[in-house]
Amino acid sequence: MSGPENQKPQKLLARQPRGFADRGPADIAATERMLAHIRETYELYGFDAVETPFVEYTDALGKFLPDQDRPNEGVFSFQDDDEQWLSLRYDLTAPLARHVAENYDTLPKPYRSYRAGWVFRNEKPGPGRFRQFMQFDADTVGAASVSADAEICMMAADTLERVGIARGDYAVKINNRKVLDGVLEAIGLADDIHTGKRLTVLRAIDKLDRLGPEGVTLLLGEGRKDESGDYTKGAGLDAGQIARVLAFTAARGATADETLANLEQVVEGSARGLEGVSELREIATLVTAAGYDDGRVTIDPAVVRGLEYYTGPVYEAELTFIVAGDDGQPVRFGSVAGGGRYDGLVARFRGEPVPATGFSIGVSRLLAALKIVGSPIVQGAAPIGPVVVLVLDRDQIAHYQGLVTTLRQAGIRAELYLGASGLKAQMKYADRRQSPAVVIQGSNERAEGIVQIKDLVAGSQQAAQSGQDLDNAAYKAQRLAQFSVKESELVDAVRGVLDNQGG
Amino acid sequence: MSGPENQKPQKLLARQPRGFADRGPADIAATERMLAHIRETYELYGFDAVETPFVEYTDALGKFLPDQDRPNEGVFSFQDDDEQWLSLRYDLTAPLARHVAENYDTLPKPYRSYRAGWVFRNEKPGPGRFRQFMQFDADTVGAASVSADAEICMMAADTLERVGIARGDYAVKINNRKVLDGVLEAIGLADDIHTGKRLTVLRAIDKLDRLGPEGVTLLLGEGRKDESGDYTKGAGLDAGQIARVLAFTAARGATADETLANLEQVVEGSARGLEGVSELREIATLVTAAGYDDGRVTIDPAVVRGLEYYTGPVYEAELTFIVAGDDGQPVRFGSVAGGGRYDGLVARFRGEPVPATGFSIGVSRLLAALKIVGSPIVQGAAPIGPVVVLVLDRDQIAHYQGLVTTLRQAGIRAELYLGASGLKAQMKYADRRQSPAVVIQGSNERAEGIVQIKDLVAGSQQAAQSGQDLDNAAYKAQRLAQFSVKESELVDAVRGVLDNQGG
Repeated sequence: MSGPENQKPQKLLARQPRGFADRGPADIAATERMLAHIRETYELYGFDAVETPFVEYTDALGKFLPDQDRPNEGVFSFQDDDEQWLSLRYDLTAPLARHVAENYDTLPKPYRSYRAGWVFRNEKPGPGRFRQFMQFDADTVGAASVSADAEICMMAADTLERVGIARGDYAVKINNRKVLDGVLEAIGLADDIHTGKRLTVLRAIDKLDRLGPEGVTLLLGEGRKDESGDYTKGAGLDAGQIARVLAFTAARGATADETLANLEQVVEGSARGLEGVSELREIATLVTAAGYDDGRVTIDPAVVRGLEYYTGPVYEAELTFIVAGDDGQPVRFGSVAGGGRYDGLVARFRGEPVPATGFSIGVSRLLAALKIVGSPIVQGAAPIGPVVVLVLDRDQIAHYQGLVTTLRQAGIRAELYLGASGLKAQMKYADRRQSPAVVIQGSNERAEGIVQIKDLVAGSQQAAQSGQDLDNAAYKAQRLAQFSVKESELVDAVRGVLDNQGG
Repeated sequence: MSGPENQKPQKLLARQPRGFADRGPADIAATERMLAHIRETYELYGFDAVETPFVEYTDALGKFLPDQDRPNEGVFSFQDDDEQWLSLRYDLTAPLARHVAENYDTLPKPYRSYRAGWVFRNEKPGPGRFRQFMQFDADTVGAASVSADAEICMMAADTLERVGIARGDYAVKINNRKVLDGVLEAIGLADDIHTGKRLTVLRAIDKLDRLGPEGVTLLLGEGRKDESGDYTKGAGLDAGQIARVLAFTAARGATADETLANLEQVVEGSARGLEGVSELREIATLVTAAGYDDGRVTIDPAVVRGLEYYTGPVYEAELTFIVAGDDGQPVRFGSVAGGGRYDGLVARFRGEPVPATGFSIGVSRLLAALKIVGSPIVQGAAPIGPVVVLVLDRDQIAHYQGLVTTLRQAGIRAELYLGASGLKAQMKYADRRQSPAVVIQGSNERAEGIVQIKDLVAGSQQAAQSGQDLDNAAYKAQRLAQFSVKESELVDAVRGVLDNQGG
């Protein structure tokens, strides 16, 4: 008889494709807890959970439609039986637009929804840059009013506090693409022939945080060579145009009123620009009325967001506390979430404008921040290790299994040692499992109907102090670290050990 | 200026690829609750959460390695930049084998782990058959002892009860591939040249539940034509061979001892078969010692499992309650989970045998069962609708927003109506949102500093009784359905309405 286990194994290399990673118990537990808290906040705001699958028709992903000749450019794509191109979703916004368009008549409108999910980018991975990562999005579709944008910004603030970011350690910053459009109009870039140049300007401003005004000036003008020698072509603006763009990004005043007055000057003469400022004023009024004008939600013209499809308010949640940057220099932690109004995405399916606004949290980035600030959300998220029942007499395994079952039925996390090794290896196993205690029973104990319980936490404290003079507490710990009880008292005794460790 | 919203929209069809589906709030909430309960049980058993990504090298998926010429056969595959084939995972077992092999030296062994995750099949979808679906797996790697298999079977029983399947409504059934191997040896199919025939026999037995002994007899012999006229080629066994295979599947006795005695007879003369029976006896002893021999975990030779890679014990969790089948006839609900020992999968990477056993729950199938039995896990899982604050005077939106904020800060799920429609449409919106109450404030009320609260549950009861004589309770309901309070009493009044509805 030749089962698979008898075939000569063809040895494969156990490896993962670049940019993909496994997740361990601590990371999974911390993420789950963080997601649960975000979810609670979104529910409170009236948002409903809705999820789309991982695979969509490539053309439905819209802005991310790959080059026809290179369908894998940026997104992972493959052909279906009927030759149509499918893709793994690139973000959660494009699939939501498809979902809303497909179910438009049955959905309540305005339609508030949220979803957490993995997205995929077929890009070069790097440190901290994965090809599979999680986003947590909230969107309001069908509301033209900027009240919807204001609401999402305030919800972003509440969410950050809910997961453990202190007030004062973050700012939700709002700007408006229409204001930027007004600036571009004022410097003569309104025509369609300038589409490419406008995008270059957008991306230059988006780097303000990282490169400062000097770097952005180069990117708006002739171009910029970075430290590695890589050259980025500039937008080719003249000095006057550059000054106007920089005046826009620097328009932030001491108060919202001052910022708005500055912006009005910058977009002077542009109806679209003034419409943008007026929308920002409306948002500022709502934010003030709700009491979020204490620095939680602010207007900041330096925020533009890198994506093309935004059509109105854009916003970003930034963590302002200081951490060590890649080069060791202190930097602000920076953006953990962002979004804006995208009135054109659903329209692609409907053939009529459908207003929409939404934002997206970078889940692993926010989790990294929570670890830095020591949020209680992520601390102690992982379950404690199991109590391990050791196997001294292999022919008594059913009896040991019975002890494990007794512990589990009492709600105590417990395991039978399932390997074939001796006592020393079993103790090492318990250690690796971060087990709080082991249960030991040899033939003599079994004959007497008792078990030994070894408290591994007290035991390790004792080991740490060996060689030193034992004070009273240590002496007590040593005495308590291993003791025997009747089998019938197993649950109470183990619970006592666990309670003692927890206290 | 030409933003995306001004471009002539190219109207796309909003549609999904076949076999993929969106999920709504009720389904998501019910699934999450079910998964949380399964997770709790697995944690109690000492299993740790470990997750692998969605994408693996195609060759790492092993048994599911697609045809070299048709890499999309069965799995979704695509080429990486370096021309290597990647695939979406087909199940959670093959990626776990890769994970264990890759981290072998740092993992505690035996290694218990669990994971819930979406898997993908590039197959023809049908009713209830999706190309993306969720599995919840638990596996023990590195334990050669069948104690590991027994533990998983008992955990399966605990899990089903934890999610709301009553004892007596399910059975976890165990068999052993080695026993089947013994039967095949006894009828002369042990040689490698019979590999294909053995697989045909395996798949024939796996249909026993659905086709009965008559159908299986045809599949073991000449072949079988089904009702639609489709012909399945048989294994070509002779009458004596068929009798022996059927005797094996029918070997179940009134007690485990009787079953084991029957099996010993069936595999007489085969060392491998006797080894299988001996393993089953060991499992039966453990199950009895733990008290799961009351019908929760039983030995059943009719269970074989369709997958090739199993090498020892195989098991299946079956729900035994009766539902209407596709043809309206009463049938047992059937299998919701299954698994077995797969000692060869990790070995492919390691070049040395690594024992492993694990099982997989079909998440949507188990959820369907919970809905049928009315498990409290899925009932009331979805959150109640939000309180909606209506907008009567558009220029007072900041004030309405303030009312919403007050409610949210008190922990009450609430929304501002964000659309542009009138009062009637706003009431219809609240209805669609299954809102428990709306808050109304016109200019007169605002001048007085009061709000109207309309209880939509009491209101709908009243509407249902209109035209009938109003009894006292209904009269009271009508009186209570709408009332006014001071703005400062908003939270207490709304909470009162919600409490009243909940009671």
